[in-house]
Amino acid sequence: MSQIKQNKNDSITRQEDDFAQWYTDVCKKAQLMDYSSVKGFIDYLPYGYAIWEEIRNYCNRRFKEVGSENVYLPLVIPQSLFATEKEHVEGFAPECLVCTIGGNEKLNDPLIIRPTSEILFSELFRKMVSSYRDLPKVYNQWCSVVRWEKTTRPFLRGAEFLWQEGHCLFETAEQAEENALKVLDIYDDIGKELLAVPFVKGVKTAHERFAGAVNTYSIEALMPDGKALQAGTTHCLGQGFAKAAKIQFLGRDQKLNTPYQTSWGVSTRLIGAMIMAHGDDNGLVLPPYVAPIQAVIVPIRMDKEPRVLEEANRIKAKLESLGVRVKLDDSDKTPGWKFAEWEMKGVPLRIECGPRDLENNTLSLSKRYNGEKSVLSIDELDQVPAILKSIHEGMYQKSLELLNNSITEVHSMEELKAALDKGGYAKLMWNENEELEMKIKELTNGGTARCYPFDAKPFGDTNPLTGEKADKVIYFAKAY
Amino acid sequence: MSQIKQNKNDSITRQEDDFAQWYTDVCKKAQLMDYSSVKGFIDYLPYGYAIWEEIRNYCNRRFKEVGSENVYLPLVIPQSLFATEKEHVEGFAPECLVCTIGGNEKLNDPLIIRPTSEILFSELFRKMVSSYRDLPKVYNQWCSVVRWEKTTRPFLRGAEFLWQEGHCLFETAEQAEENALKVLDIYDDIGKELLAVPFVKGVKTAHERFAGAVNTYSIEALMPDGKALQAGTTHCLGQGFAKAAKIQFLGRDQKLNTPYQTSWGVSTRLIGAMIMAHGDDNGLVLPPYVAPIQAVIVPIRMDKEPRVLEEANRIKAKLESLGVRVKLDDSDKTPGWKFAEWEMKGVPLRIECGPRDLENNTLSLSKRYNGEKSVLSIDELDQVPAILKSIHEGMYQKSLELLNNSITEVHSMEELKAALDKGGYAKLMWNENEELEMKIKELTNGGTARCYPFDAKPFGDTNPLTGEKADKVIYFAKAY
Repeated sequence: MSQIKQNKNDSITRQEDDFAQWYTDVCKKAQLMDYSSVKGFIDYLPYGYAIWEEIRNYCNRRFKEVGSENVYLPLVIPQSLFATEKEHVEGFAPECLVCTIGGNEKLNDPLIIRPTSEILFSELFRKMVSSYRDLPKVYNQWCSVVRWEKTTRPFLRGAEFLWQEGHCLFETAEQAEENALKVLDIYDDIGKELLAVPFVKGVKTAHERFAGAVNTYSIEALMPDGKALQAGTTHCLGQGFAKAAKIQFLGRDQKLNTPYQTSWGVSTRLIGAMIMAHGDDNGLVLPPYVAPIQAVIVPIRMDKEPRVLEEANRIKAKLESLGVRVKLDDSDKTPGWKFAEWEMKGVPLRIECGPRDLENNTLSLSKRYNGEKSVLSIDELDQVPAILKSIHEGMYQKSLELLNNSITEVHSMEELKAALDKGGYAKLMWNENEELEMKIKELTNGGTARCYPFDAKPFGDTNPLTGEKADKVIYFAKAY
Repeated sequence: MSQIKQNKNDSITRQEDDFAQWYTDVCKKAQLMDYSSVKGFIDYLPYGYAIWEEIRNYCNRRFKEVGSENVYLPLVIPQSLFATEKEHVEGFAPECLVCTIGGNEKLNDPLIIRPTSEILFSELFRKMVSSYRDLPKVYNQWCSVVRWEKTTRPFLRGAEFLWQEGHCLFETAEQAEENALKVLDIYDDIGKELLAVPFVKGVKTAHERFAGAVNTYSIEALMPDGKALQAGTTHCLGQGFAKAAKIQFLGRDQKLNTPYQTSWGVSTRLIGAMIMAHGDDNGLVLPPYVAPIQAVIVPIRMDKEPRVLEEANRIKAKLESLGVRVKLDDSDKTPGWKFAEWEMKGVPLRIECGPRDLENNTLSLSKRYNGEKSVLSIDELDQVPAILKSIHEGMYQKSLELLNNSITEVHSMEELKAALDKGGYAKLMWNENEELEMKIKELTNGGTARCYPFDAKPFGDTNPLTGEKADKVIYFAKAY
């Protein structure tokens, strides 16, 4: 075993030595992705892309609850059109990748690769909507977007990333608000039900809002290195984009009205959050409901005893019939090598099946996330889905405890600095104060207002940094 | 009824008046797509995109038979890299959309929006493959590609289209060939099992091959206007791309070998083929297995008799439990209006449910593709899946007869011209002759070699146009 340990440690940096390097090592060694031949762009390999497909399937199912329909709009936005919403263009212009040549000719109106599609959806809505009977419109698009970034990290920040973007139009501001909050709940459930990652749900400060939005809601994940990661956002866009695009509808009041818009998105960033939340020095640790392989069967001494492989195949078929995503590793590698490889790839449950197990009519199980070993009767294979459920719950609880232990109430700038240096959330009483937000970012070397969390109770009535009246709780953190 | 007829005829051009205009009318009026604000690019609306999702689900399921895994590679290809495979770059250069500015700065190496991804997959494979143990690689990607086209038609030809592109690497030429042919069979089955469109399967002439390929196989559909439509292709790329990318592997012979590559793709063009194959002057006619809505229930006199809507809801629930994609149109439009609307949208089966039907414990059915009406006992709703199957089969047979009646044996240039003017396939004996292919294109105003069909039997031993020996059957046609 010592040799295997060494193998594993050799191949990836230890978390405590360099968390950022550990992260990229795991992404590559677990074959989730590879760096492509295009600077800043990555290749999503099958094992990583399958995780994204699980997230997509989950979202497609849940988005039906808000009446969402999938569509696909163009990859590019004419520069002239992009410029119509002022704040929006200012927010995105520095990140744009721009096409200037088409079919060997210079384009009169250059085309911007979509960094997000609010503008195009507004144009579509103008054509489709003329009466309140045409509302609401609840559209969603799965695609990739491009934001020209100099520093990139797999899944977290890249020149191109995969995401979904919902774009909706409503008669009233209340309906728009309800949509944005309902989708935020669905995003929160992705963490609870799929990724085993608890999020903090809340509303952004004006300073941290999406360019052009009236309100931005977000889910924030806390990583083991103490940094926060914005994992998804929903935006109330008010009437700004609709006005810029001249969308109007004849209302129930027989007057021309301007509709209210929302947009919302999650991206492959969720994969990054999940990797960091659960991974350890032996590699990836996948929560079962998003794992491409939920259980791996490793046959022991299969070359010596043919019935081992026979039985392993029977077990595989049985587990498949129970809806378990199972892999039988019947390659000619040694069991020790297979253990290390599937640990690295984070498969939630390992099932060993050898001659001694079969004599006893049992199997040896090992849970990836906590190393817990147990024995299961072969007659009780139908327990495996419940075991996977217990793994999911155990992983979620572990992350939830980390989150709850990482929130510090602060009452002065010194405490705030100390809390942000230590890592985790600094919690304080606050009212909107953009100037102070920017000052804190400077003084704390990058601490930013993550959100006003929905579930935090006020613990005072003044902002301790200014002495001014304050009735809201805010979380600051350093962030990805 | 005459008023409804008039409505319908007003809204779309008749096929015999202008087939091309009929086609675009149907695409727009059935709300499959809309022209976007970006010239040459379309918006895929929910009803059209749902058809694409059905095709994608079918392919994902079937591609597993060739061991395919989904991945995602970058949207852009550096110009310097694109230039590595000579024939390939010459083939695609005139259609490229090129990015020259990123983050407000001029790019040193411009980025080409992928027109296809052979180059990027080759780069990935070079990193992943070093031994025969790493082969085969069978990867597939769902994405959009851009080819800068001046004339565009919805789904058939556009600056951007959605597709899947498979890219594979094998030890031997035989394995590559087997892969290309197996996938061609799957493509053929999309027609047989999903779109109810029969294809001609065959191999392309050298002149019509994919840029850089050794062999191109295709499925060709014949449209009611007598034009052929290339609906999918699979390519044996030989070792050309692998050599350009310097991919090598240590073979079973302990020597360095160059692997054999394939690529294959179908696109949203399939939707265009299906629309043209089945549509009529009343609009779209969808085959059931690809239809987003397979059956629509139209309640009659629902405002007068509340139990109509109650019963309609019960029928809807029952059909859903049978796996039928069903819509109950309980809007406040008149039944006549609803009939016309769902006819326009091509829903395969209409189910009317009114007070008189309920008295008799029956429902009135109407099949979209042939207008056939029938009566079904409410107790026999479980017949509906079988009825949908019979609709699929009827539609396929109808298209197959059209295809079989549209093949003309020709024995001279005059007969060839006449056959191509009439529409359909002109069938003749042939051996490779690129010069003559180009001459025929000129003389017949656009007739091209579609393929050497696999299932055609030789009916002579000379090419009638040259008198030279010929042992292969070829199909010429005018094409989209």
